[in-house]
Amino acid sequence: MGYERESIHRMHGYVPGKQPASTDTIKLNTNENPYPPAPEVMRALLEVPAESLRRYPEPFADAFRILAAELHGVTRDHVMAVNGGDELLRLAVTTFVEPGSPVGVLEPSYSLYPVLAEIHGCPLTRVAAGEDFCVPDDFAARMNETGVSLAMLVNPHAPSGHLMKAEQVIAIARELKGVLLVDEAYVDFVDPELKHDLVPLLAEHDNVLLLRTLSKGYSLAGLRFGYALGTPSLIAPMLEKTRDSYNVDVVSQRMAAAALTARAYARETWEGVRLERTRVQAALRAMGLRVRDSQSNFLLAYVPIGAKAEAVQAELEAGGVLVRHFKQPRLEDALRITIGTQSQNDRLLTGLRAVLNVA
Amino acid sequence: MGYERESIHRMHGYVPGKQPASTDTIKLNTNENPYPPAPEVMRALLEVPAESLRRYPEPFADAFRILAAELHGVTRDHVMAVNGGDELLRLAVTTFVEPGSPVGVLEPSYSLYPVLAEIHGCPLTRVAAGEDFCVPDDFAARMNETGVSLAMLVNPHAPSGHLMKAEQVIAIARELKGVLLVDEAYVDFVDPELKHDLVPLLAEHDNVLLLRTLSKGYSLAGLRFGYALGTPSLIAPMLEKTRDSYNVDVVSQRMAAAALTARAYARETWEGVRLERTRVQAALRAMGLRVRDSQSNFLLAYVPIGAKAEAVQAELEAGGVLVRHFKQPRLEDALRITIGTQSQNDRLLTGLRAVLNVA
Repeated sequence: MGYERESIHRMHGYVPGKQPASTDTIKLNTNENPYPPAPEVMRALLEVPAESLRRYPEPFADAFRILAAELHGVTRDHVMAVNGGDELLRLAVTTFVEPGSPVGVLEPSYSLYPVLAEIHGCPLTRVAAGEDFCVPDDFAARMNETGVSLAMLVNPHAPSGHLMKAEQVIAIARELKGVLLVDEAYVDFVDPELKHDLVPLLAEHDNVLLLRTLSKGYSLAGLRFGYALGTPSLIAPMLEKTRDSYNVDVVSQRMAAAALTARAYARETWEGVRLERTRVQAALRAMGLRVRDSQSNFLLAYVPIGAKAEAVQAELEAGGVLVRHFKQPRLEDALRITIGTQSQNDRLLTGLRAVLNVA
Repeated sequence: MGYERESIHRMHGYVPGKQPASTDTIKLNTNENPYPPAPEVMRALLEVPAESLRRYPEPFADAFRILAAELHGVTRDHVMAVNGGDELLRLAVTTFVEPGSPVGVLEPSYSLYPVLAEIHGCPLTRVAAGEDFCVPDDFAARMNETGVSLAMLVNPHAPSGHLMKAEQVIAIARELKGVLLVDEAYVDFVDPELKHDLVPLLAEHDNVLLLRTLSKGYSLAGLRFGYALGTPSLIAPMLEKTRDSYNVDVVSQRMAAAALTARAYARETWEGVRLERTRVQAALRAMGLRVRDSQSNFLLAYVPIGAKAEAVQAELEAGGVLVRHFKQPRLEDALRITIGTQSQNDRLLTGLRAVLNVA
């Protein structure tokens, strides 16, 4: 044991998905968008002036905030830019939760939430997801019972892709005494016909904090850029106090602004992902896998009885196709498969047919 | 009061120096390097592939770490890349200090240290700097008395520019029971004839953590990139546990690596700053200002009796020249003036002569 706090010494860090150096690998394990970022974003990169790098960045990323506010029909003080969605998750814990006080999570969910709670010295209030990975109706009540001041839900849910409707979010927000952080990392891939939009909630519910990221929807996982949406009273303490003063750099501020401006391009990639999601889901089912309906850019697929998901994952990897397996209750028999391009998905399907020995 | 913790509600955030939109302003208030970043760094920016933006970055920034390790003659596990030096300061507090336990600082110093302690719920053990802003000999003893597990010192000192020698750092490190973070934000501007280098200490002292940044020395304040140097046992808990998993983006990883590789260019800018530092110091003294010797890229100058530093700062600003004034004990009569280019410094000197009404 060194100089670190005892609790830090004891804990385990977050384990990110594999990032192979080889570009031959079909990478369907970390939910990146399979299409490249918009040409306008790459142009913004080329146009960054040397002088802007020499100076400190605009500390509040206001140019980006103004664009995001316009997009969502809110005012700038409803928006905060962050160095990837993970930063917002950490800031929410730091800002809204006393060390030692519980943080609420659904299980299974994004494995970073418990890590962030542990760093801050917070126990977890865990609620098991219901059938189809839905949030149980007594979720808020059980959070309130243990005095949770921050509950975190990812919606669409990961790793299932299940979408919780706005009505249920409203019901939870109304009942919950603490802050409800809805991690909308995958929201761009929701079928537009569902007209799903949680932003109007912010006008009524001052305890709702939405997380958006450019990592998935805008093909910019390498850039580390996300943003928070919430009432100004929820945003202000993070923006003015707990955030690192210059948390987003000048290059990413400019590229993120370009990405929002070129949103029409991104929207086409979402449509491409949805079309492939439908096709891959049908193909997996035809192979005998049970596959959940997903509103995200991945599918949760259960291998047939007799097969072992972990072994299937390893065999796929040996064949150059990465998918994700979680050694967790309810997920032991499943693979989380990111939707790739058509040819990548074909490689996956071919590989899987061989591994499972089906036609 | 909203949903934020009571202590967050009560505290005040860090106030960054002014960042005027106008490029006409002579900006000598936030210690940026007056010269542009190396051409090689701008070339690295142009060469960032779209594909690398689409994917998550290499989580440990290993290409950069290998370069930094070579530069300092240590192994890679002695190095951690951070999203600006501020991130390392926060991580040190989060990792090594229990909430409620004291953090040690010298006064006056970088005003972010107390803010980070307050966010983490930590009181301060404050020790007043001695004559010439040196660290008093009983610094470590006084830290140990109150059970400080992390003490933070900026060296060269800000806002004075005073350099503490390696021997004194060794004495403090040896006596201190906690971690000694030496913030070397300005170390690149130290006169090379002094052969000042704290890195050899790391082999002997497992409680010393050095902070380096590319903001000043490499003209990249807009990029947000710094790094930690320390024994692997000190680095590991931050690298593997408390750090946001993808804390530095792919663009800044590449540009930072290019900056280290093009270090010969940066070294020339340091020499340029030192030459101007000598010239400006002499000119300020000739005007009747008391000016401390500085090993940094700024000078702390005391206005003559009868003048008010705050008013002088305001008048200079009205004339288009920004310098920094701190409303703090021992600094009320002083201005912290960043060393600019020759022509910027001439504008400062001309402006100051007019404000002070001297020849």
